[in-house]
Amino acid sequence: MKVTANFIPTLREVPADAVIVSHRLMFRSGMIRKLANGLFAYLPLGLRSFRKIEQIIREEMNAAGSLEIKPTVVVPGEIWKESGRWDAMGDALLRVKNRLGVDFAVSPTAEEAFTSLVRDELSSYRQLPLSLYQINTKYRDEIRPRYGVMRGREFVMKDAYSYHTDDKSLDETYQKMGRAYRRIFKRCGLTVIPVKADSGAMGGSGSEEFMVESEVGDNTLLLCKACDYAANVEKAECKLDYSPRFSAEIAAAAAASTPPIEKIDTPHVKTIEELCAFLKTDAKQFIKTLIYKAVNVELDLSGKDAKGNDGGALGPAPGASKLERKSPSPGAPAVYPTAFFAVAIRGDLDVNEVKLAALLKAGEVTLAADADVERLTGAPVGFAGPVGLSSIPVIADQTVTALNDAVTGALAKDLHYAHAAYGRDFSPWLVADVRTVKAGDRCPICGGELYEKKGNELGHIFKLGYKYTKSMNVSYLDEDGKSRIPTMGCYGIGLDRTLASVIEEHHDDAGIIWPMTVAPYHVIIVPIKYEGAAKTAADDLAAALEKLGVEVLLDDRNERPGVKFNDADLLGIPYRVVVGEKNLGLPQPSVEVKRRSEKENRLVDVSKAADELAVLVRGELAKLNS
Amino acid sequence: MKVTANFIPTLREVPADAVIVSHRLMFRSGMIRKLANGLFAYLPLGLRSFRKIEQIIREEMNAAGSLEIKPTVVVPGEIWKESGRWDAMGDALLRVKNRLGVDFAVSPTAEEAFTSLVRDELSSYRQLPLSLYQINTKYRDEIRPRYGVMRGREFVMKDAYSYHTDDKSLDETYQKMGRAYRRIFKRCGLTVIPVKADSGAMGGSGSEEFMVESEVGDNTLLLCKACDYAANVEKAECKLDYSPRFSAEIAAAAAASTPPIEKIDTPHVKTIEELCAFLKTDAKQFIKTLIYKAVNVELDLSGKDAKGNDGGALGPAPGASKLERKSPSPGAPAVYPTAFFAVAIRGDLDVNEVKLAALLKAGEVTLAADADVERLTGAPVGFAGPVGLSSIPVIADQTVTALNDAVTGALAKDLHYAHAAYGRDFSPWLVADVRTVKAGDRCPICGGELYEKKGNELGHIFKLGYKYTKSMNVSYLDEDGKSRIPTMGCYGIGLDRTLASVIEEHHDDAGIIWPMTVAPYHVIIVPIKYEGAAKTAADDLAAALEKLGVEVLLDDRNERPGVKFNDADLLGIPYRVVVGEKNLGLPQPSVEVKRRSEKENRLVDVSKAADELAVLVRGELAKLNS
Repeated sequence: MKVTANFIPTLREVPADAVIVSHRLMFRSGMIRKLANGLFAYLPLGLRSFRKIEQIIREEMNAAGSLEIKPTVVVPGEIWKESGRWDAMGDALLRVKNRLGVDFAVSPTAEEAFTSLVRDELSSYRQLPLSLYQINTKYRDEIRPRYGVMRGREFVMKDAYSYHTDDKSLDETYQKMGRAYRRIFKRCGLTVIPVKADSGAMGGSGSEEFMVESEVGDNTLLLCKACDYAANVEKAECKLDYSPRFSAEIAAAAAASTPPIEKIDTPHVKTIEELCAFLKTDAKQFIKTLIYKAVNVELDLSGKDAKGNDGGALGPAPGASKLERKSPSPGAPAVYPTAFFAVAIRGDLDVNEVKLAALLKAGEVTLAADADVERLTGAPVGFAGPVGLSSIPVIADQTVTALNDAVTGALAKDLHYAHAAYGRDFSPWLVADVRTVKAGDRCPICGGELYEKKGNELGHIFKLGYKYTKSMNVSYLDEDGKSRIPTMGCYGIGLDRTLASVIEEHHDDAGIIWPMTVAPYHVIIVPIKYEGAAKTAADDLAAALEKLGVEVLLDDRNERPGVKFNDADLLGIPYRVVVGEKNLGLPQPSVEVKRRSEKENRLVDVSKAADELAVLVRGELAKLNS
Repeated sequence: MKVTANFIPTLREVPADAVIVSHRLMFRSGMIRKLANGLFAYLPLGLRSFRKIEQIIREEMNAAGSLEIKPTVVVPGEIWKESGRWDAMGDALLRVKNRLGVDFAVSPTAEEAFTSLVRDELSSYRQLPLSLYQINTKYRDEIRPRYGVMRGREFVMKDAYSYHTDDKSLDETYQKMGRAYRRIFKRCGLTVIPVKADSGAMGGSGSEEFMVESEVGDNTLLLCKACDYAANVEKAECKLDYSPRFSAEIAAAAAASTPPIEKIDTPHVKTIEELCAFLKTDAKQFIKTLIYKAVNVELDLSGKDAKGNDGGALGPAPGASKLERKSPSPGAPAVYPTAFFAVAIRGDLDVNEVKLAALLKAGEVTLAADADVERLTGAPVGFAGPVGLSSIPVIADQTVTALNDAVTGALAKDLHYAHAAYGRDFSPWLVADVRTVKAGDRCPICGGELYEKKGNELGHIFKLGYKYTKSMNVSYLDEDGKSRIPTMGCYGIGLDRTLASVIEEHHDDAGIIWPMTVAPYHVIIVPIKYEGAAKTAADDLAAALEKLGVEVLLDDRNERPGVKFNDADLLGIPYRVVVGEKNLGLPQPSVEVKRRSEKENRLVDVSKAADELAVLVRGELAKLNS
């Protein structure tokens, strides 16, 4: 393909909003253009690489026994209401009313669409396991789309869903998908960090994220310097640096030698640092207490058991009886639309809001407004504490259970308690792990030091269980003719992000350095001047290479060689062949061959160039695809 | 691929709304399922055929020098406002507001998106011609989606757009596209009727529709029994069966011997038939006059010329000075939101509303409500006529110019005029061709008899000219450094319709009969029982065929042979191979090979079956692709 017959609008300058390398290079190399904030058009060069990634994913999905289908992009709102996500998804779900006033959604993901299709066709256990996927357009109405196609509003995702009679079958498909994902990223030339949701120490994992390192990653990862432990900070655990006392009785006993709790004046002291300085104590001896507002809390606060009787695993939560509780839509589980919680944690640590939201099964948790804090604690912000707090449920991080002589807020301005002891002076409603693990904490597997990296999630495999099959009433008849609900897994990869991540990993100051498998073309031929003998030699070489199955871009533009060389570097085609009259005039007529990733070029006999390049190209493809 | 490893939910019964063959067969063969009214999911078998059509189209577009790109499906409303179609498209455009209240559209077509991309990149004539295409999801919020994927709300379209410095270059690409379209349909095994917008008699055509015959087609086609003239009724012309008099003066002179116009009583006479009987005259001697309401009329009714001075080609239209006229959005051409027109036509003919809307450049034209007719004509419905009608513009079909002694309504209950003569007794504001051509009319090319067919449009190529490049301010510098506006063409094919049309053309009572190029698999192997020697032979044959590049479906289900044979016929795979113990036990161990389109099967030596089938498959592919 000749450059003049193509549409590759390369640029020197970069738009101001392109802050990451892949965005800058995709824009400058004419791979993409912006249609609107978060909406990008792929131009011919970008689309070629995009389609190659699409094909790699398709091949690996097919090899893993998944079947490709194509539901619509615009789907009935009705099925989202059945699953309960019409409300739960919030503003990221792009909702549309059609001309008849019926609700639709532009799919951000397709658990509902696949499950509704499977529901209608599933009758017998003989049809299971069933693994289906699509590679299709998705939409998330992001508040702040940025970083080019790395976080756009419209994107293409491969999403697969599998249905099973039992956990063993689900695990088999889940493991197969995990292997397919590793192959996909390897074939694309990407180094990924697989991050399991829970540490191996806890047994089998139900979720694995495939991350790539990125300065501007959405995720913070904790990695161990000594072993291969890797976790998302949202779920990371660490080796305990204290001895938890899970029983309040044992804790109270441990406080036997602690002086009685005592109210102390702490005038003009606002921060924990100031308090530590004032009391000459350490933040680790302090119980920090934060008030959170949670939205759509599904966790049952009533103290009832599953049958609605008293005596549930959790006692009734303080203040919960006054809360409104309702189903956001018919059939969906009941939630508390708004509820407040106090979270107590050791003073040197931070509360992990994702862990907290997961614990509460809440749509969102945010720090409460100052006015709410004053109303609920009876004191200005800065004096909350678990002792005597009865207006709302207190959740204690398990670090608090180790504290039997602590300082904490006394629910009044300029007052704190000293000598507060868990189990003796206060008993939280719930003890849980809501701690944010940080660099320097210890690996939960081997005790090695943890360090942090920023990462972007490219893919995610997840054992969903019965969430959708139950709420959407999917069933089949088992071998004994009994009606059963299938269990389910889901497996996603973002194609646009994968493409951008390849560039993030493979570039230099001059431009992209494509791995052969996803390069838009394998070889770029650059005639010094596209005329005379050089034109003939360039045309012949291009034809010979194409005959050998090598994809060639021929820069036939009437531009200075420097411009063409710069563009060749920018586009990142793996091999560059320079065709010039001088080298063609040598006793052994030659062309210059250079690998994009290397500095040096070498002369190759023009009559052997096609064969030699074809061998090189095939070799690199085979190595990546192996 | 084994049937049990696939997902092919075949059915005996058909949903009640599946009235056409392709819808019934796609549903019964498990190719598609319905997600909602007008929204269909392709299951694995359907998607395989779909992808083959997609690939044929992609190959032919690339061969025609068009470059594939991928804009988004959700596009900014802003660009639709620039082109003026945000309002003009009406309710078929699915509009969405995002979380920030910004307008977006789910693309039904992409003139705006492509033109806005090209606008930003185009600087020099050297970049032209430029031909770009996408194969992407589209959405039209149809009022009555029906006939399965033939007229769904969401569908996939290949749409190409080309940009040119001049008409000659546009025509070259247009002709190339016309050839590519013919090849695409041939390769899919489809018989299409190319329908030019205007008759060859008028010189080069600016638009060509590719139709397939269909009982339930959206379009009525007029075809000539004698030559290859084919036209959509919306634009069809016919050989004139009268002598038009375009000048009112000549017409008046021709009425010299006509008695003076005379008011006559026509009590209790309502229809033209009754009137003809009452007056003992022929409908051809009658001037029928209909009142139309037109919405968003762009045609200038002011009588001004392009510079806003008096003396435009059309005089001021009666009543137009009182009409509101405004731009639906900034920059868009001004329109009359509502205007009424009287249309006079020879009594035996019908007004073609599509021709009328095109003439008025109106968004829509519909017959006026009775109350509007009474208000505007001063008489109940049935007594309108062009004589003395001054409240609204009168448009006369050119048949009226030949009438110099006609009967017509007298704008009063139970009164008509006799001896009305065009040019003498009335002068319409505008004379034009708004006649509906019918079967039995004469071919405009050769005079042969025209007949009608119902058809569905699969593709359309169209010279757009400057409509979008002008309204969206696209320009480039020509060789002399002068700023110019490019001219534009557009070229669409509906993939879902094309697939459904293949089935409409290739089926019998038992099921689909796929052309080899779009068959989901080339060969289906049906073991009588999938066990013992038959299992081994079937597995070996499948493996041998796959090695030869033949796509094989192996029916390994534990079902009765009759069920499997019926399903094989339903799925329509071009070759069926039955593997049974009996034939394997012959002195020359054999299998039964049957072509889906033929009745008879024949025994083939099992050791030669793979090679023989591969030759047959390749032969049929080569023939269709040639």
